[in-house]
Formats: sequence, structure tokens, C-alpha cells
Amino acid sequence: MSNDRVLVERSGPRTTITMNLPHRRNALSKAHMLDLISAFEEVAATDATGIVLTGAGPVFCAGHDFADLAEADLDSARDLLLTCTRLMRTVQSVPQVVIAQVHGLATAAGCQLVATCDLAVAGYNAGFAAPGGKGGWFCHTPMVAISRAIGRKRAMEMALTGDVVDAGTAAEWGLVNRAVPEADLTAATHDLLDRATRGAPRSKALGKQALYAQFDRPEADAYTYAVEVMAATSQTPEAREGIAAFLEKRPPKWPT
Amino acid sequence: MSNDRVLVERSGPRTTITMNLPHRRNALSKAHMLDLISAFEEVAATDATGIVLTGAGPVFCAGHDFADLAEADLDSARDLLLTCTRLMRTVQSVPQVVIAQVHGLATAAGCQLVATCDLAVAGYNAGFAAPGGKGGWFCHTPMVAISRAIGRKRAMEMALTGDVVDAGTAAEWGLVNRAVPEADLTAATHDLLDRATRGAPRSKALGKQALYAQFDRPEADAYTYAVEVMAATSQTPEAREGIAAFLEKRPPKWPT
Amino acid sequence: MSNDRVLVERSGPRTTITMNLPHRRNALSKAHMLDLISAFEEVAATDATGIVLTGAGPVFCAGHDFADLAEADLDSARDLLLTCTRLMRTVQSVPQVVIAQVHGLATAAGCQLVATCDLAVAGYNAGFAAPGGKGGWFCHTPMVAISRAIGRKRAMEMALTGDVVDAGTAAEWGLVNRAVPEADLTAATHDLLDRATRGAPRSKALGKQALYAQFDRPEADAYTYAVEVMAATSQTPEAREGIAAFLEKRPPKWPT
Repeated sequence: MSNDRVLVERSGPRTTITMNLPHRRNALSKAHMLDLISAFEEVAATDATGIVLTGAGPVFCAGHDFADLAEADLDSARDLLLTCTRLMRTVQSVPQVVIAQVHGLATAAGCQLVATCDLAVAGYNAGFAAPGGKGGWFCHTPMVAISRAIGRKRAMEMALTGDVVDAGTAAEWGLVNRAVPEADLTAATHDLLDRATRGAPRSKALGKQALYAQFDRPEADAYTYAVEVMAATSQTPEAREGIAAFLEKRPPKWPT
Repeated sequence: MSNDRVLVERSGPRTTITMNLPHRRNALSKAHMLDLISAFEEVAATDATGIVLTGAGPVFCAGHDFADLAEADLDSARDLLLTCTRLMRTVQSVPQVVIAQVHGLATAAGCQLVATCDLAVAGYNAGFAAPGGKGGWFCHTPMVAISRAIGRKRAMEMALTGDVVDAGTAAEWGLVNRAVPEADLTAATHDLLDRATRGAPRSKALGKQALYAQFDRPEADAYTYAVEVMAATSQTPEAREGIAAFLEKRPPKWPT
Repeated sequence: MSNDRVLVERSGPRTTITMNLPHRRNALSKAHMLDLISAFEEVAATDATGIVLTGAGPVFCAGHDFADLAEADLDSARDLLLTCTRLMRTVQSVPQVVIAQVHGLATAAGCQLVATCDLAVAGYNAGFAAPGGKGGWFCHTPMVAISRAIGRKRAMEMALTGDVVDAGTAAEWGLVNRAVPEADLTAATHDLLDRATRGAPRSKALGKQALYAQFDRPEADAYTYAVEVMAATSQTPEAREGIAAFLEKRPPKWPT
């Protein structure tokens, strides 16, 4: 399931996917993104309930690989960006809870990845940036994800200045769920993931996907959809068992 | 206007609606939701300008009543959720400013109620949770309201972990307007409501409803709508009186 | 380019537009808004890369001029509000980065201006309010911009109470990018603007406008649009130069 560029390691209910191109700052070349998509799709089919996304080496992920782009024509640039969008959609559509464990820099599409994961924990030394704004190629697609995680004025500041936002500020702005001392990063990531993966896996998988589906809808439309999903899921063995266990004051036993 | 399950008490311009099923943790059975809808609709027709929503006993509101749900088929589950959605819509459409005064726990549809009220004040001992995520039935409909009040990463954390968020954090995230010492809860709630109910009642009633109507629209559409509402209301006796009073440096006298 | 009511001063790459009706608290009469629109449009056609919007006298901007409105019929009220909306759209569509430098009060349409500028820095003495809620004419159109900058509960609080929010709170809520001591206001504004105007001007101008274009779209639609813009811009001389400079480890030289 792993190859040299993307490591996939299962540990109990948790699978860790590691971007393993430290000499390229885990840059998202097309090949690397396809490897990542394959890794997520393969883990999606397992009974793992949580996925940690992390990067090897000093940088979490530096975004697209400019070496790929130096000669790219319009078609290949679009193809690269569509692959990147497919990676983001894959992260949000797998049934597992996906948490980014961020150390070092997460820039451009690397910052987009953090904004896209369901949850994120950052070490104090982590930094977040959309540097295109201070260069020649604006971070249009990264800002789709980043601007949906933080407020508009902050999105404008990140997009226009390109400056690095520190981990504490990223936590205040809601780009990550918490910032912790570097030494605690793995433990804090696992702790949050463990808490986020309790409960019936099938219920949670649908829950995560339905939450994304309703985020951008007008409130009345979101209710129309959410009522139907919630009514339908009331009939599942998971909901029945959860309700019965609650009423009988016993631990639930989820169907497999 | 009151019954044993829902207390409705008028005090000057303010009406307090109290969920009064402490032995059931103010759970939102269908009967209880219908009582609440009736109470809001009845107060809507009065000249009260503000409504405090509170709960008797140690818990603000524990959400749906699992006893109702243990045997519910798809149709009755849907019916229950549509009634709940109607309660939320009622809170946002009455002409009064509605403020939640939250102590103890507000979970699932109880947390949805807090997110739905126009304003909310929480005691330091209050806690907020969408616990379905750690059980068998995900909090799909509560998250419609909760996710519109707080950022996405925080919405994901509440939905996936189901853990209780304390009052201070809820205030930082924008789920409530402020957190105060328990002893000050009633006074702080009344103070914010008093400040939120100054001005011409008809102007404010339309203002509140128009604000909800524009929240989810694209900005250009929101302006198209808001310009028309604001132009139309410039011709009302309330606007005329407000402008005249300002220019004449005297207190306004609102038409009744 | 300037007249007495609106000062336009160029200093290097930065142009400052000053609302200069201190005796009228820089109120947005129709004439004043048309002057401001002209000023922004004229600067838009220059090679300035940043615009500071500021106000002369003790107040940043007090919103619409009630003297205009006392006698306004429906058509003239609508005309005034459409002109105001055009001013807001102009601020967001000029190719320059626009930063509000806020001291004193920014109320009603004045607060809307702050919410509308790409970036904003406030002195500690600044205050922000949507006072219509405590009067007779609700701040419908100002709240379109304000509610998109801050959370819903906070938007409701500002709209319903009409109370002044201090600069520190405005920064916490994301209505402004930062609050600084009054003595540092100009320097902090220039510093943020300088950092926000690095990079290739044509790339940044499109970046700013595309960011507004995608804010309100559902995420999947936003990606569809952003991918196309980002792919197209990969072929521009600016992107080519940025990528080449990065790979060659030299400073970029932007095409003019």
C-alpha cells in the first residue's frame, strides 16, 4: 500500500499517511498527488476509522512543485490543478476522519491541504502561508479552502501579503483546531483523532460527508437536506443501538 | 398562555419562556416542541419586544427525547425533525429579539436552539455539545445551525468528537455572545436584551428578519434585497421620526 | 484629481484618499459618495498599487447624511443606497489593494466601508457601530458587508444593539485586521499595505477580484472557477517570471 513517496502505516484503528519527499519539501507534483489520492482511496476501503496526514522532513508541504510548472502550458496547468482539486475532494469524501498533523511550513496548496482536512493540529513552530500573492501567480485555488476556514479580512491578509501566519494565530482564526508544543504534536493529534473517531463508523462517515454537503447551502435548503438524512439514519442499526444503549444505560455495541 | 411544561412570564417589555421539564432535562419531545412553538407564536402577537428562552432545572436542554425515538419509524422521525426545524424557524421569524440564557448543558437540538436564537448569554458552568458524533446517530440537523455560528474546523470538531465545549470557548467561537459568572447570568442576559430592544419595534422586527434573509445570499444578491428593504423602510413613520429626532437633537417617540 | 471634499495624494506606489468633510463627520451624502467613486476610479487607472482610505477630523465616517434623508422619497432613498452600493463595489473592484485606516467612529455606512475595504487597521480609540438598530431605520445595507466579515451572533449583536464595538474587539471578531496604538496607526497601516502590495500588480489585481468572486459560491463551484483562473494565469508573463525567479533563486522582475 505504501511506496517510497507516500508511506501508509496502520496502527490499530488509525492509519497514518506520510508525504515522504523531504528533499522536495513534500511538494505536490502531479505524481505525488496521484500517489496521495491512491493512498486515501485505499485506506477508505479499509476499516480504519481515522487518518493522520503528515509530512516527512522539516516542511509539512510546500505546495505545488514549481519545477512542474516552469514549462506547463494551459492544458497541463489546468490538469495539475484539477488533480489537486481531486485530492482535496478525496480527503473530504473518504469515510474516515482525516486530521492534519502540521509541523514546519504549510504553504500554498500545502496550506490548502490543512484547510481541507476535517481537523488539524499544529506544532508551535508551524507556519501557514498563501505566498502567491507576493509573487507572480496568485493562490487562487488554495484560497478556496483557506477562505472557507477563516474570516474574510484574514483571508484577504493571507492572500495579499503572502506572509507566514504562526500556529497560535492559525488556531485563533480557526485554520487549525489547536496549536501545541512541538513535543506534544503527535500525542495531541492522536488524542483529538481518538475523540473524533468514537461512535459508529458508518454513522460518522455519512455525518462527515453530509456536513460538507450542507455547509454552503442557504440555511433553509440545508435543513431540507439534513432533515431527510437525519430521518433516514434514525432507521439504521447504528441509531437503534445508540438509542437503546442510552436508554438502557449500557455501552453501545456497533454493528460491523 | 403558560402550561406546566412551558412557562410564559411577562415582565415589562420582556417575556421569559421557560422550558419546564427538568426531570426530562427539558428534552424536545414533539409535544414539548409544539408547546414551545405555541408559546413563541403567542408572544409574537403581543407588544413584548424581547424574549428570554431559558430552561428549568440543572440542564438548559438535552435535545431530542430518545424515549420518543426508540420506536420511531421513518415517517415519525421525519415528522419530529420537521417540527424541530419549524421551532427553529419560529424563533428566527418572531418580531421580538430572542436571547438564550444558558446554564448547564445545551446538547444536540438544545445546542441548536442556542445557535438559532438571535443572541445568547452563557453562565461559566454552561457546556455545549453535538454528541451524536460519538454515538450512533449523527447530529445532522443541529449542525446546520451550529456550523453557521462558528468556523468550519470548530464545527467539524464539535460534530465529530461530540465533546462538551465550555462557555468561554463558545464565546470565543461566536456560538454565544458572552460568558459570565453564573451569579450574573440573568442580569447579563437582561442587560444585553435591553440594549438589543431599544429603538422602534417595527423597524427592529423587520431588521432581524431581513438579516436572516440575506445571510446566505451571495453578496451582490444580498445588496439587491437589502437596498430595496432599506429604501422602503426610509418611508416609514419610524424612520422619519428617528431622523427628525436626530436632527432636532431630541429623544425619538416611536409610533405605536 | 483632488477637490476640497476628497483629497487624493500619491506617495510612491501608495495613494491616500481622504474623506475631508470633518464638519459633517465625513457623512456619505450623495455628492460625497460620487466624489469618492470618482477618486477610486481615477486611482484605479494609475500605476499605484495600494490605496489608503482615511477620514479627516475626529470621526472616520458617520454613515449616511441624515440631512439628505429627512425629506427623501422612496426613489431618492433608493438612489442614495444604490450609489452607496456602487461605492462599495468600486472599492472591491479597483485593481489596487484598499486598506481602511480607521480612527474615531465608523458608524452605519461608515462601518460598512471598513468591512468592505480589502484590509483595515484601527487605532485603539476607534469604534464601530451599526446604530440603526437602536433607532427607527435599521442598518440593512451596512449589515450586508458587516455580517460577511464577522460571525452571525456578533452581527446580530451589532445590528440589534447598535452599540459601539471597540477596536480590540473588532480585531478579535475579524472586522479589522489589527488594532494598534493611535500613535502607530499610520505606520501600521502603511506597513500592512506595503506587505500586501508586494508581487506582480496585475496578478494581485486579478487575485483580489477573483477572491471576492468566489467567496459566496458553494465550494465545488468556487473550485471550478478558481481552477480556471489559476490555470489561465499560469500562462501570464508574471507567473512565468515568478516561477523562473524562484527556480533561479533570484529576485523577480515584474513586467510593466
